[in-house]
Amino acid sequence: MSDILKVAIAGLGTVGVGTVKILQQHADVLAKRCGRPVNIVAISARDHNKDRGVDLSGYQWYSDAAEMARDADCDVVVELIGGSEGIAKDAVEAALNAGRHVVTANKALVAHHGTELACLAEKNGVSLNYEAAVAGGIPIIKTVREGLAGNSLSRVYGILNGTCNYILTTMRETGRDFDDVLADAQKLGYAEADPAFDIDGVDAAHKLAILASVAFGTEVDFDAVHVEGIRHINAMDIQFADELGYKIKLLGIATKVNATIEQRVHPCMVPEGAPVSTVEGVFNAVVCDGDFVDTIMQEGRGAGEGPTASAVMADVMDIARGISVPTFAVPATQLQKLPTRPMAERRGAYYVRLMLVDEPGVFADVAAALRDHEVSMEQLLQRMRDPGEAVPVVITTHDTTEADMVNALNAIAALDTVTEAPCMIRIETF
Amino acid sequence: MSDILKVAIAGLGTVGVGTVKILQQHADVLAKRCGRPVNIVAISARDHNKDRGVDLSGYQWYSDAAEMARDADCDVVVELIGGSEGIAKDAVEAALNAGRHVVTANKALVAHHGTELACLAEKNGVSLNYEAAVAGGIPIIKTVREGLAGNSLSRVYGILNGTCNYILTTMRETGRDFDDVLADAQKLGYAEADPAFDIDGVDAAHKLAILASVAFGTEVDFDAVHVEGIRHINAMDIQFADELGYKIKLLGIATKVNATIEQRVHPCMVPEGAPVSTVEGVFNAVVCDGDFVDTIMQEGRGAGEGPTASAVMADVMDIARGISVPTFAVPATQLQKLPTRPMAERRGAYYVRLMLVDEPGVFADVAAALRDHEVSMEQLLQRMRDPGEAVPVVITTHDTTEADMVNALNAIAALDTVTEAPCMIRIETF
Repeated sequence: MSDILKVAIAGLGTVGVGTVKILQQHADVLAKRCGRPVNIVAISARDHNKDRGVDLSGYQWYSDAAEMARDADCDVVVELIGGSEGIAKDAVEAALNAGRHVVTANKALVAHHGTELACLAEKNGVSLNYEAAVAGGIPIIKTVREGLAGNSLSRVYGILNGTCNYILTTMRETGRDFDDVLADAQKLGYAEADPAFDIDGVDAAHKLAILASVAFGTEVDFDAVHVEGIRHINAMDIQFADELGYKIKLLGIATKVNATIEQRVHPCMVPEGAPVSTVEGVFNAVVCDGDFVDTIMQEGRGAGEGPTASAVMADVMDIARGISVPTFAVPATQLQKLPTRPMAERRGAYYVRLMLVDEPGVFADVAAALRDHEVSMEQLLQRMRDPGEAVPVVITTHDTTEADMVNALNAIAALDTVTEAPCMIRIETF
Repeated sequence: MSDILKVAIAGLGTVGVGTVKILQQHADVLAKRCGRPVNIVAISARDHNKDRGVDLSGYQWYSDAAEMARDADCDVVVELIGGSEGIAKDAVEAALNAGRHVVTANKALVAHHGTELACLAEKNGVSLNYEAAVAGGIPIIKTVREGLAGNSLSRVYGILNGTCNYILTTMRETGRDFDDVLADAQKLGYAEADPAFDIDGVDAAHKLAILASVAFGTEVDFDAVHVEGIRHINAMDIQFADELGYKIKLLGIATKVNATIEQRVHPCMVPEGAPVSTVEGVFNAVVCDGDFVDTIMQEGRGAGEGPTASAVMADVMDIARGISVPTFAVPATQLQKLPTRPMAERRGAYYVRLMLVDEPGVFADVAAALRDHEVSMEQLLQRMRDPGEAVPVVITTHDTTEADMVNALNAIAALDTVTEAPCMIRIETF
């Protein structure tokens, strides 16, 4: 193997520029590691003239990514445009149909169209690699697809969104409230101007759907992910969590239970000793439970120019080295379609914070609602007193089903003495 | 690819039996993932008749592993015998010379003969895979060799020996002394009857030499590893560490400094917030620092039947899938031979515990020795008093060179008032 691997890059945002930098700065060692040179031949981006701090003069320029994917003389198209539809999807499909390998960092695209794109890639005898789509620099796709390939995995979970983890960590460290910390995160570039994708859990859900597919050999099923974000977490909850020995983390959790798949993204209370509890700030972490390997955790930066470009390059180098593995660990046509385990069947403990009018005997109705739905209390905290006004009351429960908990909460929310919607956070002990 | 991959297993200890179990229990899904069946065809072990809890009746039996490696009709020889010389080495060489792939869990063999075996493998166009030789179930070799292949790594380090980590963790949690905890670890099966390889740091050094080679593209150089074990750590040191905000961990650290390589295994004081500080008990963890990915940490079980067999299987499946990567990330003939950075050049802070006769003014001589060698004290702790008897005195220093520290300690050790050899532990802040 001494033929040059010819790379075309579609999209020159942060990650695109990072990828160009690696290919330029490490050209010699990459060639040594791959047994052949890996060269950029073509680039596509909206603005040709913008100064991006890298020399792009030697590459063919395309203003249309799909045209480049179809027409450029290249072996691999690296798609770094983003978005589940439109130009990114067009470019990826064009590349696969033209028999070119694809490397993408596009979690939305793979989460929404992963199965069909994998079928298309495998039909054309090329790779569709997406290491950078999940957990940034952490090589978790390679780990699941190859490193743990001897195992039957029962669960993958983790901190999949650095923006949320940064916000929750900062709220805990400073005692400040959500909106305040979010505004700061936006100023620091850790959150987008429109932060909805991150803070509402959608980004983590994209990643989880991809992880679940490669871990369990099932079709990518983004629509089956139960998604909740972190907007409703306030400083009080963080403080109560601390007092109870927990940290609040937005986790994505995918579990295979018998022949069903459970996928959920929501804030969790995790005990301070749990593996993911020490993962703070913008860092991501993914934990895999396998029948032989037991538990493996990987931690690293989940976003940013360097870490994401590192993952993109791992995919490109796999192609240069002739490494080819089924897109989601088993051939795409053999991916299973397993039923979704309903959230109502989740069994575990719960944290509930109520805003309750501070009057004698007011808790009796709450206790009755819990009893009526067979939810058993483990702890009750009422730290503040303010007669006649609403004060926070926190309950933790023993293990119960989500269905019973939700019914109890609906009954509680309807009480006159409950002044706002209860805040419920699931406790995950791992 | 639908040809069967034929596997011969040499050695049926814990890991061998675990590997047989995976191949038997997961045969269907392994075939789906690899695109071809992966079947055991031959087995070699000392005792044919021992009941190992797995059915071995369908496999050809060899009493001589090298003979099996040479003669059996197989594609891969899995070497799980152990030891850097003798039968394990003979079997691996025979397999490579016969054009068969080799998978090994043998850290001693790869640490001592890695470069020459890699040359032999590459000359014969076959793979030499050794994922299980480093950090058990953690897929760290794949991570470094493939997942982080776009990076220039500056450092790899970690907790590479579960026995030592278990002993140090238990000493800390119980306040008990080294010998006592070691005896317990032996009863629990966490330490060998002859524990020297583990507690003297040799096992960790084997793994570090391998990691350094694959991380930096250098020849495997076990003899260049500076090795210290944990026998001299006592309950007092653990307690002082705690008081100072540190944990004591046996770390393997490999660093590329300019064009030199530093490899060292020794007990370290790590601050309680450092990534590896929360890795307790028998768990291993490896941290990689790369120029683009920044820092990646992986944590998991470093030994045991299931985790080690999981790593062995990943290697076998790579071969079944046709994945071939240079043994140490670049072709063996291109591995560099870089000079070793002398320990004397290490620069950092130090913890020193002296046993000093409790007399007025006795510390003046110690302070003078430190001053004479330009070692600057950061903290001094003397908690106990016992006039006329030896009491522990603990010093932490500001950053200094190892050369100066060692000279100062030699001068201090020679003082009449110092009743036993000083205990020195390097402080690593990461």
